[in-house]
Amino acid sequence: MNLETAIEMIQPLDQNAMHLAKMRLDSLTKPLNSLGKLESNVIQLAGILQTLKPDIRRRAVVVMCADNGVIVEGISSCPKEVTATVTRNFLKGFTGVNVFANLSNTDLVICDIGVDDDLSDAPQIINRKIRRGTDNMMTGPAMTREEAIQAIEVGIELVGTLVEDGYHLIGTGEMGIGNTTTSAAISAVLTDCPPEIMTGRGAGLSNQALSHKTNVVKNAIETNAPYSDSIDVLAKLGGFDIAGLAGCFIGAAVHRVPCVIDGFISAVAALVAVRICPQVKDYIFVSHQSKEPGMIKVLAALEMEATLHLEMCLGEGTGAALSFLLLDAALEAYYKMGTFDDAKIEQYIPQV
Amino acid sequence: MNLETAIEMIQPLDQNAMHLAKMRLDSLTKPLNSLGKLESNVIQLAGILQTLKPDIRRRAVVVMCADNGVIVEGISSCPKEVTATVTRNFLKGFTGVNVFANLSNTDLVICDIGVDDDLSDAPQIINRKIRRGTDNMMTGPAMTREEAIQAIEVGIELVGTLVEDGYHLIGTGEMGIGNTTTSAAISAVLTDCPPEIMTGRGAGLSNQALSHKTNVVKNAIETNAPYSDSIDVLAKLGGFDIAGLAGCFIGAAVHRVPCVIDGFISAVAALVAVRICPQVKDYIFVSHQSKEPGMIKVLAALEMEATLHLEMCLGEGTGAALSFLLLDAALEAYYKMGTFDDAKIEQYIPQV
Repeated sequence: MNLETAIEMIQPLDQNAMHLAKMRLDSLTKPLNSLGKLESNVIQLAGILQTLKPDIRRRAVVVMCADNGVIVEGISSCPKEVTATVTRNFLKGFTGVNVFANLSNTDLVICDIGVDDDLSDAPQIINRKIRRGTDNMMTGPAMTREEAIQAIEVGIELVGTLVEDGYHLIGTGEMGIGNTTTSAAISAVLTDCPPEIMTGRGAGLSNQALSHKTNVVKNAIETNAPYSDSIDVLAKLGGFDIAGLAGCFIGAAVHRVPCVIDGFISAVAALVAVRICPQVKDYIFVSHQSKEPGMIKVLAALEMEATLHLEMCLGEGTGAALSFLLLDAALEAYYKMGTFDDAKIEQYIPQV
Repeated sequence: MNLETAIEMIQPLDQNAMHLAKMRLDSLTKPLNSLGKLESNVIQLAGILQTLKPDIRRRAVVVMCADNGVIVEGISSCPKEVTATVTRNFLKGFTGVNVFANLSNTDLVICDIGVDDDLSDAPQIINRKIRRGTDNMMTGPAMTREEAIQAIEVGIELVGTLVEDGYHLIGTGEMGIGNTTTSAAISAVLTDCPPEIMTGRGAGLSNQALSHKTNVVKNAIETNAPYSDSIDVLAKLGGFDIAGLAGCFIGAAVHRVPCVIDGFISAVAALVAVRICPQVKDYIFVSHQSKEPGMIKVLAALEMEATLHLEMCLGEGTGAALSFLLLDAALEAYYKMGTFDDAKIEQYIPQV
């Protein structure tokens, strides 16, 4: 499915299902709205899945893996090869996201959308490689507009396949050394915030290295200016991972499944998706507030708030997988709490 | 065990276990500290339980239930009888905390420490009733100093029994109509913040009712001033539920088990406990940031931060039970993630 068709297919949430879900929540033996975001999560799930009985038991985290040309500028404390190594390690079951995915009964879907290595010996890794890493955004566009759209369409198609296979909940994750740099650049342009605010320490940079990384982001933004639209920003400053994840958010909206933001990189992808098509926002859930400083501004631009404040900055989809536990809790309360009738209590009357 | 003896028994955390746990965490295949608070949680668990292999599978939420004399001032949207009804409903399995406790494999321990009803027909409710509710703090002390200490000792003893029974993780919860009012009064005095900031809508008050509640808190504080120490504040403005929970935190420190704050009321109890004995703080974990406005100031006074931001205000121990899922996740990562050796990656070097 191409991007244009996908955008045309996106529909609003099911207001009737949302209304009925809210009525059910208000009948439960608790003060009105006292489960806070867990209640709004249930209502949103009902609206997305068009049912009073949302079922999100089959869930996957899609991990988009890609290399970034800007790595040659020395903006990461990790060597580039770590992208390919960790991408392979996802199959071995001992990475952070493996552990949290197991804990939340989540399947991992590992997608090579641009790793600079030949991963064909690992057939469980879905091969959607656009090419072996982007170009260096310091000296020109990271990718062409066509490649950006192609990478978005990879995400749309991948989510479509997962929904066909029975998945009803998608989380996002990524692996790509250098991708907090690309994320900082994209989000600085999209939120109109200075690179100093959007650039963070990634896997652990020194003050001096952070200052260098910030300059790289600034220079890349200037080199590639002006920007015609969000896809142009994505193409010039992006990674294939971010583009693929933006496609996942759009695909989730097309196929009516909830899609959960992980950390900074994934939030930037969500922002790109929402700037391409604002209605995508209704299908997005936030998980954690990453330690990367730019995350605050990106969530503010999305007008969303994280539920988990753990100061994590591991990426991979770890926060998304963890947040599934909270969505499960929300539905458990919705399905299993008693009503005021069961409780033999007069309903607490809301007083406004 | 009396309060004085208990305080003398409290020991510092095991620095050696903490150091070894940190070494293990730093060997895992992730950027240093990238699991944020999950890592500090593991280190704290190791220090409390004095082991490199913390085991928190046997866990309970203690729900302290009590009535508050101040209810006659019309400070709640719920009738007083709801305290007894919900206390009984905890046995029926359909309250909020029942659902979240099931989800996190947590046992519920329901304690009547001052409900204004005869609950002797429900033997699963532990009867430690001080008396049938406190006096009205608007017109004088809610309880005597002796009663406050007695209620604290109930909490200490209860946690002691649970630890003897093999429990290694304690959560706190409460049920007591009017207890956001008592919590606002105690915390306003202990944090030196104006009652306007500490008083919230509880189960859903109108603006006018909130203003009345705030005045009640102010008047109660003035009527009972001056305050000689934290126990005096607790006695004059407290509920038996808050006193009992303060005892749970102290008991957890005595018996070296982690004890988790739930919402506003429970946080106030933790603050009382820490003011009585500062070392108790090392044994405390925070769960969620309640919607009650005073919670922010109480956590600031404790120098602690919530990991769950769900805008919940249901009480009962719901947030504590939910947060056990995150402690489980922290230990899962600690036990099951691979090391840099497994991952065939050079350790990311921290650069400061």
